[in-house]
Amino acid sequence: MLKVVVIGGGSSYTPELVEGFIKRHKYLPVEELWLVDCEAGQSKLEIVGELAKRMVEESGVPMSVHLTLDRTHALGGASFVVTQLRVGLLEARVKDERIPLKYGMYGQETNGAGGMFKALRTVPVILGICKDMEQLCPDAWLINFTNPAGIVTEAVRRYSNIKRVVGLCNVPYDMHTAIARILEKDKEQVRIYVGGLNHMSYVTRVEVDGEDVTGYVLDRWGSHSMNNIENKEWINGFVKELGVLPSPYHRYYYMAKEILEEAMVSEQTRAEKVMALEEELFELYGDVNLRTKPKQLEKRGGAYYSDAACSLICSIYNDTGDIQVVNTANCGVMNEFEYDEVVEISAVITKAGPVPVAVGKLPKSVRGLVNTIKSFEVAVCEAAVSGSYEKALLALMINPLVGSQREAVKVLDEMLEAHGEYLELFSK
Amino acid sequence: MLKVVVIGGGSSYTPELVEGFIKRHKYLPVEELWLVDCEAGQSKLEIVGELAKRMVEESGVPMSVHLTLDRTHALGGASFVVTQLRVGLLEARVKDERIPLKYGMYGQETNGAGGMFKALRTVPVILGICKDMEQLCPDAWLINFTNPAGIVTEAVRRYSNIKRVVGLCNVPYDMHTAIARILEKDKEQVRIYVGGLNHMSYVTRVEVDGEDVTGYVLDRWGSHSMNNIENKEWINGFVKELGVLPSPYHRYYYMAKEILEEAMVSEQTRAEKVMALEEELFELYGDVNLRTKPKQLEKRGGAYYSDAACSLICSIYNDTGDIQVVNTANCGVMNEFEYDEVVEISAVITKAGPVPVAVGKLPKSVRGLVNTIKSFEVAVCEAAVSGSYEKALLALMINPLVGSQREAVKVLDEMLEAHGEYLELFSK
Amino acid sequence: MLKVVVIGGGSSYTPELVEGFIKRHKYLPVEELWLVDCEAGQSKLEIVGELAKRMVEESGVPMSVHLTLDRTHALGGASFVVTQLRVGLLEARVKDERIPLKYGMYGQETNGAGGMFKALRTVPVILGICKDMEQLCPDAWLINFTNPAGIVTEAVRRYSNIKRVVGLCNVPYDMHTAIARILEKDKEQVRIYVGGLNHMSYVTRVEVDGEDVTGYVLDRWGSHSMNNIENKEWINGFVKELGVLPSPYHRYYYMAKEILEEAMVSEQTRAEKVMALEEELFELYGDVNLRTKPKQLEKRGGAYYSDAACSLICSIYNDTGDIQVVNTANCGVMNEFEYDEVVEISAVITKAGPVPVAVGKLPKSVRGLVNTIKSFEVAVCEAAVSGSYEKALLALMINPLVGSQREAVKVLDEMLEAHGEYLELFSK
Amino acid sequence: MLKVVVIGGGSSYTPELVEGFIKRHKYLPVEELWLVDCEAGQSKLEIVGELAKRMVEESGVPMSVHLTLDRTHALGGASFVVTQLRVGLLEARVKDERIPLKYGMYGQETNGAGGMFKALRTVPVILGICKDMEQLCPDAWLINFTNPAGIVTEAVRRYSNIKRVVGLCNVPYDMHTAIARILEKDKEQVRIYVGGLNHMSYVTRVEVDGEDVTGYVLDRWGSHSMNNIENKEWINGFVKELGVLPSPYHRYYYMAKEILEEAMVSEQTRAEKVMALEEELFELYGDVNLRTKPKQLEKRGGAYYSDAACSLICSIYNDTGDIQVVNTANCGVMNEFEYDEVVEISAVITKAGPVPVAVGKLPKSVRGLVNTIKSFEVAVCEAAVSGSYEKALLALMINPLVGSQREAVKVLDEMLEAHGEYLELFSK
Repeated sequence: MLKVVVIGGGSSYTPELVEGFIKRHKYLPVEELWLVDCEAGQSKLEIVGELAKRMVEESGVPMSVHLTLDRTHALGGASFVVTQLRVGLLEARVKDERIPLKYGMYGQETNGAGGMFKALRTVPVILGICKDMEQLCPDAWLINFTNPAGIVTEAVRRYSNIKRVVGLCNVPYDMHTAIARILEKDKEQVRIYVGGLNHMSYVTRVEVDGEDVTGYVLDRWGSHSMNNIENKEWINGFVKELGVLPSPYHRYYYMAKEILEEAMVSEQTRAEKVMALEEELFELYGDVNLRTKPKQLEKRGGAYYSDAACSLICSIYNDTGDIQVVNTANCGVMNEFEYDEVVEISAVITKAGPVPVAVGKLPKSVRGLVNTIKSFEVAVCEAAVSGSYEKALLALMINPLVGSQREAVKVLDEMLEAHGEYLELFSK
Repeated sequence: MLKVVVIGGGSSYTPELVEGFIKRHKYLPVEELWLVDCEAGQSKLEIVGELAKRMVEESGVPMSVHLTLDRTHALGGASFVVTQLRVGLLEARVKDERIPLKYGMYGQETNGAGGMFKALRTVPVILGICKDMEQLCPDAWLINFTNPAGIVTEAVRRYSNIKRVVGLCNVPYDMHTAIARILEKDKEQVRIYVGGLNHMSYVTRVEVDGEDVTGYVLDRWGSHSMNNIENKEWINGFVKELGVLPSPYHRYYYMAKEILEEAMVSEQTRAEKVMALEEELFELYGDVNLRTKPKQLEKRGGAYYSDAACSLICSIYNDTGDIQVVNTANCGVMNEFEYDEVVEISAVITKAGPVPVAVGKLPKSVRGLVNTIKSFEVAVCEAAVSGSYEKALLALMINPLVGSQREAVKVLDEMLEAHGEYLELFSK
Repeated sequence: MLKVVVIGGGSSYTPELVEGFIKRHKYLPVEELWLVDCEAGQSKLEIVGELAKRMVEESGVPMSVHLTLDRTHALGGASFVVTQLRVGLLEARVKDERIPLKYGMYGQETNGAGGMFKALRTVPVILGICKDMEQLCPDAWLINFTNPAGIVTEAVRRYSNIKRVVGLCNVPYDMHTAIARILEKDKEQVRIYVGGLNHMSYVTRVEVDGEDVTGYVLDRWGSHSMNNIENKEWINGFVKELGVLPSPYHRYYYMAKEILEEAMVSEQTRAEKVMALEEELFELYGDVNLRTKPKQLEKRGGAYYSDAACSLICSIYNDTGDIQVVNTANCGVMNEFEYDEVVEISAVITKAGPVPVAVGKLPKSVRGLVNTIKSFEVAVCEAAVSGSYEKALLALMINPLVGSQREAVKVLDEMLEAHGEYLELFSK
Repeated sequence: MLKVVVIGGGSSYTPELVEGFIKRHKYLPVEELWLVDCEAGQSKLEIVGELAKRMVEESGVPMSVHLTLDRTHALGGASFVVTQLRVGLLEARVKDERIPLKYGMYGQETNGAGGMFKALRTVPVILGICKDMEQLCPDAWLINFTNPAGIVTEAVRRYSNIKRVVGLCNVPYDMHTAIARILEKDKEQVRIYVGGLNHMSYVTRVEVDGEDVTGYVLDRWGSHSMNNIENKEWINGFVKELGVLPSPYHRYYYMAKEILEEAMVSEQTRAEKVMALEEELFELYGDVNLRTKPKQLEKRGGAYYSDAACSLICSIYNDTGDIQVVNTANCGVMNEFEYDEVVEISAVITKAGPVPVAVGKLPKSVRGLVNTIKSFEVAVCEAAVSGSYEKALLALMINPLVGSQREAVKVLDEMLEAHGEYLELFSK
């Protein structure tokens, strides 16, 4: 019996996930879909859960949908556990974004101080889920797309006994789409190779019909006009010299000032915008006449995330052997990272998990940055499991988005207090 | 015959160098000391040169001092060539410091945009000197303490046939002094191991009398008080977690904001202060009654630089086998860098040159930063010898002190124009 | 138009190749098949060529077969060039096997002194073919299964401009078959990962239905009985401790003495046996009533070689993305080898060529051996293109099957003379 | 108080050690010298001990000599512990040499099967000494020249808490002497750099007066005559191509056949010759009129071993900072080995221990061999502490001097039985 458990089942993304399972049912015959959430998420869970049931009913596939607030009730016998939770809900994300801005740092849920705090809250919860999985479904695959996905996956590999874990992100999916558009090809005709870290991966090679067209895309990834750069487009001269395609998330680093300025004058943070959007979505979801995924969901930043998850699960289940971009152990493939470190990389998806493929050397000019971020990720993991103030401070000090000892201390102190209820280990 | 040629002989530091040769004359019997400068430096050369002659006369050592504006006149038969030149004089340094500030970057002669431009001006000149050395004194040692010393040494190793080159800096000397003070020991009793890059090296190990006392010094390298950090002291909690001792230059990175704020409100840049100081010094130097190095020289930031150079020359000449910190090829010792890259490292000084010693692994938390800076150095070298706008832009984009594509372009454009006369390769 | 050129087309293996193209014609619509051979191979070429034509006729596929002694006549417009030649024919192989035996070394066409001499004869011929390909079909794929396949592929990558080259061997195919037998599964149900060098690769991992069953196979790869080891079976205790599955070719190293003893008392060398077998085969091939590949061909050691080649060509042509074991550039995947060195490794086969996948770390206990053999391969390549006596001597001295300076010199001298006509570069 | 404890004090080498301490007494004021031996060595200990006392008396230095059979009685307060023991005495060595010969392998006390068995007997005894040191003199230096010195030092670093350990060998000392002779220079004028493993280290660089003269020595290290190679001289063509100077012990590998043949026809093994020599020596030692080290001792293969030990102890004690060749942790200097593995390497000797220096890259052609031997050493260590039959078999199988699975099993079985009384762990 194929059973899938979704932790954070009350998420607004869930309808995409449900749609993904419905449309793949022929190849991926999910019999039971369990949506789990915590008490704070109960009402959302009910709304989304009922929509899910209507969607399944509408589709006619033989899949039952179950809702619960007790994950131990759900996990037994699961083949796949999907984690898409948000500790502290969007309210916590607002703090991740607002507080750093006070200290002149960009606030973001996966990078810099905000990213660190999201990780500190999330890692212990995920490790708790792993503990339960060890007992209840030790052979299940943990498919994580809770952010920061790279750090969370690294933490699971370091501090739990669950080895069947894959982290997922929709950025490589989006880059693939963008590259296909530049090449004026269908996505299926374009093969990309991706290497690096979550929210810090580069496209190292692009091929069409067996030809290496990387140079062509490098030439068109940004703008040719130097006058035009205010708008946060990449300059082609830079991208070409870099030699690999940066992702949108690289702007946080190479255009830190531009991004920060914009955030400083923005009235709403991303979380606040999302809150509004979510309200709209849940209103829609509550409509008993809605029996399919509403179009509006595609406006959410994480669109295609859930579809990527379904696609990954389907490939594992069927031992497909296609190449997808995932967060998994490096296995020595990228010489820039340690053998066992979690990287974001193109990998063959098999029933035994992802097998990374040769994506080529990262250019010398990006090795330092990716190493810095990896060491940040590792320091954050260590802080999350130990509750060490000094580890957390070190993590901030080595993060390129901080750049100030004085402000590092201040932001650390304020955020430890603001998120105190979710950071038990640090209260000691 | 032992002949030493000093290029940039009109420097205000020269009296320290002359004193160094005088006091070591028994072990390092320099017969001819040639001071070379360019036309723009002629009057300084004459003032310093006359002082040098008086100092030698006063000391009674059998060493002749020669002045010339034509280095090809001086180089023949030299055993050591010391380079301490400043292309564009202090006027250019003022621009290196002032212009970046306009774009919200700290201006500095060895780091960030300023450091890059100092390198772009200097590397071609040094490579020209190497060409002359190949003809006139192919076996001589090139002792460089022209900044940025790491980049210059890297460029010589990459783009000239001079293999006998050592770069020097006084920062490790100063750190050694500071550590001895913390330990309340004489410097001779304290052994330190240093690894990293020029202006980016860390003390990895401290020993007294065979005992590893690194932990003791880590505990005392910064301040215990969190309230006290406004003044740019390190926080002990950070230093200890880092596990190695940062140098004063690391403040440019870990306290970028603090440093920048201070520079923003400062009326004078460092170069402007130095100009005033130099004026004073040259007034002193011109006094025919002055026959020894004046105390005031020790106030210059580069104090002990020249003494370090004399000490290095003396150890090479005598095959001493003592350990000094120099800029030289890594030779595989620091696994963080390529085999042949120039690093700043503790090395045994022999007649055949420096032999790096095992300084230990750098902590994971600093590997990314030093790799970033090394890739910046290499990109700068490539830009300097090619005149490529894109390489120069790449170098800025990967430098942690820039952090903005928009400002990178602006500062690059303005500085290329401001320093145009010294950047022939870029004018094409 | 899809055109395939086979150099060494008169080989006894050609019927397998022809059969391979016929049965895959739907997916791999070869229009022209050119069989090329040298003058010494003319009569064989004619016999095999006529059989090929009859086989194609019998099958009814629209593929034309062409015979020529002039490869420049054939190469223009080719998509795939298959090399399966034997410089000096089997007569030379007899010498490769006989002469080393005189000096107490096992004689073999891919290992030790014999392997080196086969490489010295073959590499210049293959590089000549590459030169012609550069002119006549620069985008064609070179599929080499001329032995020693690893060295030949390495030489092409080092010393030619042909980058589209893949080396092939049937050993991994045979190991896959053997492993499936142990597991009592169909081959399709068993996934293996292979890493190392040609004729020196290990199976690092075996999976069935997503489960790692490597331990199970390690336990059954050899014999449990210590009394039974005379017969060249592996001892399970050894294989298990080794941790990876050795190939049959590893016997040459781990059972060098046993293999040598057997060869010493054997009346015929392998080449002599093959000569007899070939005579039989060609008699069969000449029968105008024969219109399919005869069963007897499967007795030749290289059986399934040609089928592996067809399968590889088919996957490249169709961009299949399946995993095959090939000789290709490491691309950093196996940390035991340099980034660009040719290894034998599991790789995803795409239209742009093979992309190696993570096969895991080789155990410490085999790293030394594979490194030794790689350095032997590189030294042989260098000797082959330079004609340096000293390089050839070095290659022998570092080869584990030699073990004697005195005999290395003797075997080198005798073989240089015996193969003189094919070793022009050495005659200088 | 400076106290030195010699374990295996009854060794025939002890007089050299005593002479070494006497002549260095001014710089190395040993007050107490304790000679420790086991019961089986009691009579030797008494003879040597009495000679030691007479030698000290004759010299007039204030050093007391103590004899004991109980090392716990001696170790308290020691600064240096010298281990020069031989488990099973020369009788066991005879077996190490004789038994392998029966199976067509050279028998040797540091290489191949014999070397492995000497290690299996010795490692547990040395680890027992380490345990006692931890209790009685945790800060003392362990200076080991018990063979196989590389494996023993590796085992101490892996399996004990004693970190202050250095292994010593006289081979680099002898190579230095031979090189000076070739250069017709005094040894003091010649600087050599050594890298590799114990009994497998190469001279990578030779300098005279700051000039690299490695090429000159490479040209003269062997014989120019190819006719002359029967006598086990190196051929210059090989040495030059190798690019580093092999040690005499490399003959066991590159001339395995020659060495084996010679041993096969020799009537006495090395151990048997040494037994005769030792008998002579002890007769001399027993003469109460002998009050200095007798000349005859210099004929023993290990001559200068003890002097090297005294020299090392003197440099540690005085923090001399001179370069000596020792067995110590690699500390990342040789990229061929793991960071922490024990290597034989040129190192600066300080009070805190040896600090390896950059000795350059080993040529590709020797990396495989040294890695093979290192993996053998590690497997032997693992076998020694676990008593695992399979580990011991693996060690033999990967050793280049074995080359036969069949004989590996036989020699292992026979030697396990022959040395049973010293291999307690294996008897289970």
